[in-house]
Amino acid sequence: MELLYKGKTKDVYELEDGNLQLKFKDDVTGEDGVFDPGANTVGLTIEGAGKAGLRMTRYFFGKLADAGVPTHFVEADIDGATMTVRKAEVFGKGLEVICRFRAVGSFLRRYGAYAEDGQPLDAFVEVTLKDDNRNDPPISRDALIQLGILEAQEYDTLEQLTKEISHIVKDDLDRRGLDLYDIKLEFGRDSRTGEILLIDEISGGNMRVYQEGEYIAPLDLEQRLFVK
Amino acid sequence: MELLYKGKTKDVYELEDGNLQLKFKDDVTGEDGVFDPGANTVGLTIEGAGKAGLRMTRYFFGKLADAGVPTHFVEADIDGATMTVRKAEVFGKGLEVICRFRAVGSFLRRYGAYAEDGQPLDAFVEVTLKDDNRNDPPISRDALIQLGILEAQEYDTLEQLTKEISHIVKDDLDRRGLDLYDIKLEFGRDSRTGEILLIDEISGGNMRVYQEGEYIAPLDLEQRLFVK
Repeated sequence: MELLYKGKTKDVYELEDGNLQLKFKDDVTGEDGVFDPGANTVGLTIEGAGKAGLRMTRYFFGKLADAGVPTHFVEADIDGATMTVRKAEVFGKGLEVICRFRAVGSFLRRYGAYAEDGQPLDAFVEVTLKDDNRNDPPISRDALIQLGILEAQEYDTLEQLTKEISHIVKDDLDRRGLDLYDIKLEFGRDSRTGEILLIDEISGGNMRVYQEGEYIAPLDLEQRLFVK
Repeated sequence: MELLYKGKTKDVYELEDGNLQLKFKDDVTGEDGVFDPGANTVGLTIEGAGKAGLRMTRYFFGKLADAGVPTHFVEADIDGATMTVRKAEVFGKGLEVICRFRAVGSFLRRYGAYAEDGQPLDAFVEVTLKDDNRNDPPISRDALIQLGILEAQEYDTLEQLTKEISHIVKDDLDRRGLDLYDIKLEFGRDSRTGEILLIDEISGGNMRVYQEGEYIAPLDLEQRLFVK
């Protein structure tokens, strides 16, 4: 088992059979000791954070598989905090695809002249580049195509999958009395088949969830969902 | 004649007949006494800057009229540094539409992980919001529609007009041995007819022009083009 990549919150190993193993760590992103899922630096270590994120990820990847959404998920070992996945190549140097149901965060910071805090949005999709040095800039469909990062048809597939996945997560949370405001997803091409897959994880750190207007922090969310 | 608006580089008056008069000032945008067309503050005053910008604007609006492009231009008085235009409403609180033939400026700052300085782009169009407080953020077609700033068809009209206008300016400069790297345009709806028009000005401050790889500052460009 070869270490391919040491990430901020996960390490990635290559397995003998060509699949990958993701090791979920207890490191979480943030600044000055405060957890912030949008931050680009590891801010602190919280015991159990890795397992909690994996538990939520396993749950949602299972729901997506039931709905026929292609993902990289193969199996998870909660006690070991590892997840086995199909190997996939990211687009360019990695993209994040965000689906917004309400105007908060960077959307509001950019477009606050036209949107109010928490204003409903119609499953609005946007893409950002994973680029810590440039603060993960948003990028339009046209620019993705112009720069050869995506083909027009690939963009349309990502957008359609993003809406489908985001609605599945939103509906699940709705049934628990929770409101999904936004969610960020990552996609890749299956290294063997070329199929576009949802990759990475779906945990508290990927989304903003509120209950009756009050923000629920990622770890609180994971505990609410999975502690009996 | 009523003063409607005092701008950074132009003042706007309403005329008796419902048209507007734009008074081109010698104030130019910049910071710390250095001229920067992209800046949001007035940096310095340069004698003759207003007339030089107006002369170039009159020239290009004339070319566009010959090509059948709808603009707000009615007539110009170079000595008085004024231009009479049809009244138009901007989209939202004002948009800038940029057409890029080479990757420089904010495009490169955002997408430098995928583009090299000066790399050719295929008349790439993007829109930014005029919003000094938020540093004129770029905004996608989808976000413009989502926020009710443009309808899908209006976006497509703006994009098509922007490419047509930008190519007319580029071809003119090409014939003088000059390279247009990018240009920013503004559009509005004719207050009487609702027709989409090119508004504002087309002067050195609206574009980046190079000669054999060397940047030509806006006032130098205006002088080169119009001093016999």
